[in-house]
This record gives sequence, structure tokens and C-alpha cells, in this order.
Amino acid sequence: MTNRIVVTKTHIDGAPKETDFEVKSQVLAQSAQPAGSVIVKNLYVSVDPYQLNRMKSDSSSQSYSFLAAGIGPEIDCYGVGKVVASGNPEFQEGDLVAGLLTWGEYSVLKPGSMFRKLDAMGFPLSNHIGALAFSGLTAYAGLFEVGKAKKGDRVFVSTASGSVGHLVGQFAKLHGCYVVGSAGSKAKVELLKEKLGFDDAFNYKDATDLRATLKKYFPDGIDVYFDNVGGEMLEAAIDNMNAFGRVAVCGVISEYTGTGRRAAPNMVDVIYKRLTIRGFLANDFMPVFPEFISKACEHMGSGKMVSIEDISVGLDSIPSAFVDLFTGGNVGKKIVQIAQE
Amino acid sequence: MTNRIVVTKTHIDGAPKETDFEVKSQVLAQSAQPAGSVIVKNLYVSVDPYQLNRMKSDSSSQSYSFLAAGIGPEIDCYGVGKVVASGNPEFQEGDLVAGLLTWGEYSVLKPGSMFRKLDAMGFPLSNHIGALAFSGLTAYAGLFEVGKAKKGDRVFVSTASGSVGHLVGQFAKLHGCYVVGSAGSKAKVELLKEKLGFDDAFNYKDATDLRATLKKYFPDGIDVYFDNVGGEMLEAAIDNMNAFGRVAVCGVISEYTGTGRRAAPNMVDVIYKRLTIRGFLANDFMPVFPEFISKACEHMGSGKMVSIEDISVGLDSIPSAFVDLFTGGNVGKKIVQIAQE
Repeated sequence: MTNRIVVTKTHIDGAPKETDFEVKSQVLAQSAQPAGSVIVKNLYVSVDPYQLNRMKSDSSSQSYSFLAAGIGPEIDCYGVGKVVASGNPEFQEGDLVAGLLTWGEYSVLKPGSMFRKLDAMGFPLSNHIGALAFSGLTAYAGLFEVGKAKKGDRVFVSTASGSVGHLVGQFAKLHGCYVVGSAGSKAKVELLKEKLGFDDAFNYKDATDLRATLKKYFPDGIDVYFDNVGGEMLEAAIDNMNAFGRVAVCGVISEYTGTGRRAAPNMVDVIYKRLTIRGFLANDFMPVFPEFISKACEHMGSGKMVSIEDISVGLDSIPSAFVDLFTGGNVGKKIVQIAQE
Repeated sequence: MTNRIVVTKTHIDGAPKETDFEVKSQVLAQSAQPAGSVIVKNLYVSVDPYQLNRMKSDSSSQSYSFLAAGIGPEIDCYGVGKVVASGNPEFQEGDLVAGLLTWGEYSVLKPGSMFRKLDAMGFPLSNHIGALAFSGLTAYAGLFEVGKAKKGDRVFVSTASGSVGHLVGQFAKLHGCYVVGSAGSKAKVELLKEKLGFDDAFNYKDATDLRATLKKYFPDGIDVYFDNVGGEMLEAAIDNMNAFGRVAVCGVISEYTGTGRRAAPNMVDVIYKRLTIRGFLANDFMPVFPEFISKACEHMGSGKMVSIEDISVGLDSIPSAFVDLFTGGNVGKKIVQIAQE
């Protein structure tokens, strides 16, 4: 059996380009795998900004990533697939699984790797790598566990039309918060206001003074800032935070490529307003997963919450899909469909 | 009765100079005060870096300060005094009080202002504006409530020989932590190691690479950083923090004068290491005061903890004492003795 995989030609420093990637073929034989391995035909794979960190030549974040273990040419990603060969009695041919796959037509899931049998619960399979998986958990845990959002809080979300942001805003609205999001185009701003129920939204590219812009949208200040970008937006948000405000630091896409300047928040404000700035990773909040999945299924089942997905088709579209994340090309969760079910 | 007070000639932007201040005389008559006022003869007054924030021409911190209410020419400070005239039946002439006084020979404590009768409990009066008052509470609450220090944690304290820092280190040691402090002179470093029981200490002025220096003193990383300075030290500390580390942001003396550059911490680290950076003010931790004072009295009574005080004498020494805070001239808690008991 031949497997086609997407790999990096070399380390990537700065913004990624499609030419940084190539498709390689490898021979895949069940007999050559460690005992207990499961081979999965990939159906949907995820494309996320954080993956850039493990492609860098020298990034301290590489070593923190739970993806770092056993780095090979394959690039790990979250995904959904179907078992085609199994050396593990718990998994049978034809089983649907969700977990840590790789950018390829097939993934080899070695014993001890992170995956589970998937019950789609009537939702499209693509939902299970976004709103009903880590994107959703990141939004939920970041907003409620880290940001400690409560009814009536004023919540600001950056990259609000992104994979996590658009869910943060909807969770916050359903919880009784006032929510404003920032995004990078007029169409995205419309989406947030018209389709996703945000109280308001703005195009950060039109804002000449982010501090004044946030002041306009939050005349009574910000209680929770769900930060996906870092940089100047973080500084401007801190300027507008209320006393005892919380910043949930989910991503710093402005800094991943090394092109945006680092945020230098006003620490005098941090003290006098007693702000908490806390970084988090969704995988630390697995104990919250059952609560999250129950809420998310309820909201999505009743149509109160929608999952926006931006699906491209075919393994060869992975590089362009990934590059798009850094140029604002995507709306919602970026997913690549590798094969039909 | 004539009262001499220390006031600013104008707003102070940048590092304070002695010439920014002057001594003024005012006539003080009990009959001219609001009903219920208490007039106190000041014995010891405090001199603290944060006071600079309310002297600035345009500082957002002015409005946050609990000192801002009813700003007059007088500069508020913590202090200990003796009642000389009272329109309040709860206070009698001769009573010792501690609370929010002003830089002057006398303070008028209007109804509703923050002060209480003082029981010196056998300790010198000067202790009651430092180790047994807000400096001590700041150290205790910052270390345990904000920094969540626990036995075995590796704790780093900057400005470790300062009013708060030298108490943080001693509380941490008595709690079973490993403690390293930074200070700005050889003599201060010796004090930390020889007299205050720090595991180690270094002179930050000798460190050409703060990141590497901290790596040397914390080969196993930092769990709690008690930040009194901000700027580059905060960045270097974050580079060396362990996963789930906590930064208690107490002060940013490097930024108060507008001369030091702002910290631009690596937010990718903040996320991947799941760090919490939290600003705090001691007055939010009044519920912890009884616990703190009981521990502090126990440790100080038994000699396990010492309060380092740097006392200058006379109202006219206030400006130089204040200026010293920003040039590293003080060791321990800076106090001005205004009058003999």
C-alpha cells in the first residue's frame, strides 16, 4: 500500500509559503508497524496555526508541544478517519476514530497515541474535528475556566471568525454576555453580526487606533478578553480592561510568524486593575470535556449554535489551506477533506 | 497650630528629584475640620515607589489609586501617629493610630478615612508601617494568594532587598521554598544571603544576560516569580518559568519613571507553559490580614523573620528618602521618623 503525505521541505521561519511543502510517497505495510498499531484512512484533517510552531528551526514551543514526541517527517494533526487495518483488538476495520492523525492519506496510530472510537451522534463528521472537538473545547474552557466569564460580562474576542473565535462568541452570547469580535474583512464582520449573533464586530484593518476603537465598542470596559492574536491588540485590550478583568491567552498568531511585534502590555495597568493574563492549552481541560460536549451538542442540535467550516478537498490542498490561515483567507474552522466516507 | 507638609511643586514625569518637592506651612485648627475629624501627630510615615504614580501629570494609575479620592496638596501615605485632638468619640487624645496619614507633621483624618487604633503588641512602632502592615501583607498575599507558592517551589524575587521583597523571601523560606533574589549592589546581595536566609542572590547590574543568569540560578526552572520591577527582568523570568508557573505582579519600578522600557514577554511561552501573570494590590486581601499578622508576629517574635528598615529622621528628609527609592539607595522598608513617641 502506498501512502501520500504532506511534509515540510525544510524548517519554516516566518510566514509559511506553499512551496515550503511537498507531497511524498511512502510504502505502508501493516506488517512493518509496531504490534498493536492501527492504520486509518484519513477522512478529514485539521489545519491549525499552532502547527507552525513545530515546523520552526528553533522554537522553544517545539519542545512544549504534545506533538513533539517522536517527531518524524509526518506532521501531526487532529482528524477523523476510518480503520482499514488493526493490530489492536479494540479497533475493527470500518470503525470511525477521532484523534491525532497525520497530514496524509493514511495515518499509522501506534499504541499509546491519542485517539478514540468516534460516535458521530448524528452530526457531520467534520464537526468532530472542530466545534465538537478541540476547537470547541478550547473555546469553552478558555471562556469559562480561564476567562471565568459570567452572565452580563463584556467579552471581547479577536480573530472572532476563526476556528475557535466564532465558537467563543456564540458560547458567550448563549451565556448572557455582551460580545464584540474583531476580524479582518467586511464579510467576516457581517458574518459575526448577522449569522453568529455577536452584539457587534469590527474590521481591525480599518482601525487606525485600536485603543480608541475598543473604547468605542466597550464604553463600560472589557471584563474578559479572549486573545487569539497578541501584539498591539493585546495592549489595546489591556488598556480597556475593567478592574479584575481576565485575559485568556489562546493564541498569538501575530507572533507565530515572527513578523508582528510582541505585545508590551502596560504592567502598571495590570497591577492597578488587578488583571489576570493566563495562557492555556485545551488538552489541560479534558476533565471539562463531558460538560463541554453536552452543552455544545445541545446548542448545535437545537440550532442555537452553528459551526462555520471552511473545507477544502484533497490532500494536495493542505499547503494552501495552511498558508491561508496566516493571510486571513479562512472563515471558521479550516478543514481538509482527504476522502469521502 | 501650624502644620508643615511636604508637597510637589508640580507634576512629576520621569524620575523624581529632590527639587520637585517643597515644604509648605498650613494653619491647622480643629474647629475648621469636618465634624468627626481626628488630628494626629505623625510619628512614622512611609515612603513608597507607587506614590509616584499619583504625582504624574497624566497617569491612568492616578484614577485607580485608592489614594485619589479627594486629592489635595497633601500626599497620602501609610503611617503611625498619636491623636492630639479628636472630634470622634472612638478616639482619645494620646491614642496610637495606624492608617492613611499624609506627608506632614500632622494629619487630619476625616470621617471615613482609613485608619484604626494601633496595638503595638510589643513590636517597635516602625514595624507597624512595614513588616506588620501593608508591606508585609503585600509580601504574604502576593506570595501565597496570587503566586500560590507551596513547599518545594522555586521562587524568584526581584528587588529582593526592598520593603516587600525582603519579606517575600523570608516568608518563602519559612514555607519550605527554594528562594533566589536579585538586588542592585554587592552589599544587598550579601544581606539577602547572610542575614535573610535566601538560598542565593545576585546583583542584576553584573548580569549581562538576565535570561542566562536566571537559568544558572534556576537550573530546574522558576515556579513563582514575585515581580517588583517589570521590564527585561520579567521577560527573562518568563523565559525561565516552569509549566503552570505563576507571576505575581507587585510593582514595575522600572516603568514608573517612564525610563525603563516595557516588558514584552514571550506570549508563545505564556501559552505553551500555561503561565498565569496576575497583578494585585494588597488592599484587596484584607480578609487575609488576620492570618498574615498572626504568622508575621509569630515569625518576628521568635526571631525567624527580621524586618529591615531604613529610617531617616525629620520631615525635611522625605524628598531625599523618596528620591532614593528610584536610585536604589534604600535597603528594606524606607521610613521617615517625623517625631519621637
